[in-house]
Amino acid sequence: MRIVLQKVSEGSVDVVDETSGEVDTTFEPQHIGIGYVLLVGVEDTDGAKQIDWLAHKIANLRVFEDENGKMNRSIHDVDGSVLSISQFTLYADVRKGNRPSFVKAGAPDHAEQVWHAFNDALRAQGLDVKEGRFGAHMRVSLTNDGPVTIIFDTDELGI
Amino acid sequence: MRIVLQKVSEGSVDVVDETSGEVDTTFEPQHIGIGYVLLVGVEDTDGAKQIDWLAHKIANLRVFEDENGKMNRSIHDVDGSVLSISQFTLYADVRKGNRPSFVKAGAPDHAEQVWHAFNDALRAQGLDVKEGRFGAHMRVSLTNDGPVTIIFDTDELGI
Repeated sequence: MRIVLQKVSEGSVDVVDETSGEVDTTFEPQHIGIGYVLLVGVEDTDGAKQIDWLAHKIANLRVFEDENGKMNRSIHDVDGSVLSISQFTLYADVRKGNRPSFVKAGAPDHAEQVWHAFNDALRAQGLDVKEGRFGAHMRVSLTNDGPVTIIFDTDELGI
Repeated sequence: MRIVLQKVSEGSVDVVDETSGEVDTTFEPQHIGIGYVLLVGVEDTDGAKQIDWLAHKIANLRVFEDENGKMNRSIHDVDGSVLSISQFTLYADVRKGNRPSFVKAGAPDHAEQVWHAFNDALRAQGLDVKEGRFGAHMRVSLTNDGPVTIIFDTDELGI
């Protein structure tokens, strides 16, 4: 799995109806205050091991500032929330040409299943998790406060 | 170098005064419409080769949608701009413990120089480039429209 974590003071998502170009009213826009916006990419080989490692790591990561301005607090400590967004483009291969290839991204059915299981694993860590809509045209708005952006790649991490 | 590219409908940055916690009025908030917000991390080994490869690749990348909704247009085609933000946390090592180590991030002087040279290389590709302030506490706001997020890592790419 690949995750781009952004530490935010707020984040929100809505869905765009591809035909009308208007807001898709069948999706309730989601909003969080302080916390993380997670852009989540899934490969075909991903499963419980990657899900559990990432959920535990992110729930316990200490990158929020304490009273001395040091990165010392976790998302629990600041009573933060998570906005989780599926993002297959994290597996873009940009080596050749100007149009990235996305063949490394997982098959949609599998990717959706893993993404949902990951969100549940975050909830099992005691976190409030809001979700976008898998595979939809979404607009993800956020304020990255710091900024703090961290890349997780379970292949690179050997997980 | 590591870059997290987010395709945006708008992006902006302001700076927070660390002592007062208020907006730092010595920094003019920067704003772009359609284009890319680039979070840019630099290592000690980075230089002209990485800068030039990335500037050319990003200037010519075709990830904006055409009239058929296909990723076919470049930032030039949509008259887009770049908001470039230095982001050392992209070199976070999250393997051990809950507080990431940032030892892989480049020394600040070198990183600042490379970041500025990269922004100039993007300008040399004909792009309008707005900048945050290196090393400051910044708030980066954006709307990732798609969403489309792409990770570039020149080590991984062998550049």
